[in-house]
Amino acid sequence: MIADEKRLDSLVEQFFRESFSTDNPVITEAIKRLLAAGGKRLRPRITLLAAATCGGQPLDHLQLGAYMELIHVATLIHDDVVDRADMRRGVNATAIDYGNRISVLAGDYLFAWIFKNVTANYPPPVPHILSATLADICDGEVLQLRALGKLDVGTNAYLEVARKKTASLFVASAQCGAIMGGGGPEAIDALRVFGDCYGIAFQMNDDLLDVTADQQTLGKPVGNDLAERKMTIPLILALRDGDAAFRELVARCYDGGDDGAIPAILEGIARHGGLSGTRREIAQFVGRAKTALARLGASGAKAELERLADALIDDEEIPRS
Amino acid sequence: MIADEKRLDSLVEQFFRESFSTDNPVITEAIKRLLAAGGKRLRPRITLLAAATCGGQPLDHLQLGAYMELIHVATLIHDDVVDRADMRRGVNATAIDYGNRISVLAGDYLFAWIFKNVTANYPPPVPHILSATLADICDGEVLQLRALGKLDVGTNAYLEVARKKTASLFVASAQCGAIMGGGGPEAIDALRVFGDCYGIAFQMNDDLLDVTADQQTLGKPVGNDLAERKMTIPLILALRDGDAAFRELVARCYDGGDDGAIPAILEGIARHGGLSGTRREIAQFVGRAKTALARLGASGAKAELERLADALIDDEEIPRS
Repeated sequence: MIADEKRLDSLVEQFFRESFSTDNPVITEAIKRLLAAGGKRLRPRITLLAAATCGGQPLDHLQLGAYMELIHVATLIHDDVVDRADMRRGVNATAIDYGNRISVLAGDYLFAWIFKNVTANYPPPVPHILSATLADICDGEVLQLRALGKLDVGTNAYLEVARKKTASLFVASAQCGAIMGGGGPEAIDALRVFGDCYGIAFQMNDDLLDVTADQQTLGKPVGNDLAERKMTIPLILALRDGDAAFRELVARCYDGGDDGAIPAILEGIARHGGLSGTRREIAQFVGRAKTALARLGASGAKAELERLADALIDDEEIPRS
Repeated sequence: MIADEKRLDSLVEQFFRESFSTDNPVITEAIKRLLAAGGKRLRPRITLLAAATCGGQPLDHLQLGAYMELIHVATLIHDDVVDRADMRRGVNATAIDYGNRISVLAGDYLFAWIFKNVTANYPPPVPHILSATLADICDGEVLQLRALGKLDVGTNAYLEVARKKTASLFVASAQCGAIMGGGGPEAIDALRVFGDCYGIAFQMNDDLLDVTADQQTLGKPVGNDLAERKMTIPLILALRDGDAAFRELVARCYDGGDDGAIPAILEGIARHGGLSGTRREIAQFVGRAKTALARLGASGAKAELERLADALIDDEEIPRS
């Protein structure tokens, strides 16, 4: 199966290289550049594996898998508009703004292009699932924006954001793969739950890496989430179990704007159990994801999905989006 | 019929005030503010009238009409991100960027929310038409961006942009209204052609107003399109029929960045027949729009659609988006 899985991956890559094209050459190029920049293609992999666990032929669903990756890519394109604030300082504003203009339009076009193709080629409820998923992603991102810097965000509010912003697309990837692979209601539901738990564990692992990995592995500065005043799960757990001095330290940074406190916050997160607590949470959601799969018959594809989930608790082999 | 039409308008407004709501309160408020700021609701009006010409009950299609307006609103929200470049200078960057973040997400959410509802409640091909329309709008806007400042843009390239960027949503409004109103293939096609010709005339009229109306009527500076280096139809026709001195003047502004030339360009557009030529073009497309309607039986709704088209050549009563 590992050989097969590798073959599927390379077919997804081949699809993007050779078959992906839109009617607008500027947009096609912008998207192809982003695709070529890398990514583990976790969402298409989950779609193809979900189809396979339901008895489908993964090769029949390359296009569907590609749409899942492209929804992810479109949200990344719009995130770049959103996150460019810091880079803008000291950079030619016109160039940046020209970038913003094309970025907004390219993301919009990509969403529309996906829906145009999905409504033409896929039966209900696939088009509805994909559009509802995009609504959830945006809803989750707005909730996260509104929660920036709010130290009273607890695990429930965190889970709502993670579920909408991140897990929803893994849910859609697994669920649509199962539907198009010919799965029955029980299998579709099992894969839906898998996607939800996997996606939450994935987001928690992403949060964890932000405060533990080195800059080179991460491709962005360590503590970047803290600099953006995000309420990540390691921070939430450390605040819950930490003392008043730690809360004051975080408040000085999150309310008071003191970025100099970030190294001490990183240290405090570790000291107050934020890292170990996050690892426990991840292990729990990975466990639930695998339990959901237990409702499916044994297959190589199911074993691969289990392996993907386990990789979220294995520091040596962490899938990156 | 005029009384009826007024009643339909107020029902569309009532729908937005009382029935429009998304799952995200921040986004709902942002959209409601924009809706309350005005607009002639031309797209929903065309949807309801198209349904009526096909024998449908306009009241049954308020929601569909609302989706057409909301697609327009979502593109406006993203245009604000795109067009804020100038305002950004000298303004608190963080406030502007926070606005950009929410604007991008609110527009994305609105697109997704519309597709989520349309895929749940409307039969094929309505969801496909709407997503293909959004793809066309973005494609047209990218084409327009790429053509900024290019003096060799001719009427064909202009028409492609106007058709995609502006007319496509009028096409979708008319076509989907006809489909849901129970129209046959002939009526649906007639209304599709109406939407296309109406939409092109509408864009040309918009271009004309930019160089003729006063700032108060327009709600933005006169010559704003010129300041943005857009290739509008009055300018294209004046360049076609003008002399070398006029072309040099425009080049000094469009290539050379000399905004001081704008008053002279405005004067040159008038002198070289840009205004009269545009009025002739508008009259032609309005004529074609009305010819398309001739394939439908007589009805009050059809008369209203004719009146809407005629209003584009009547300076006294110009519909504004």
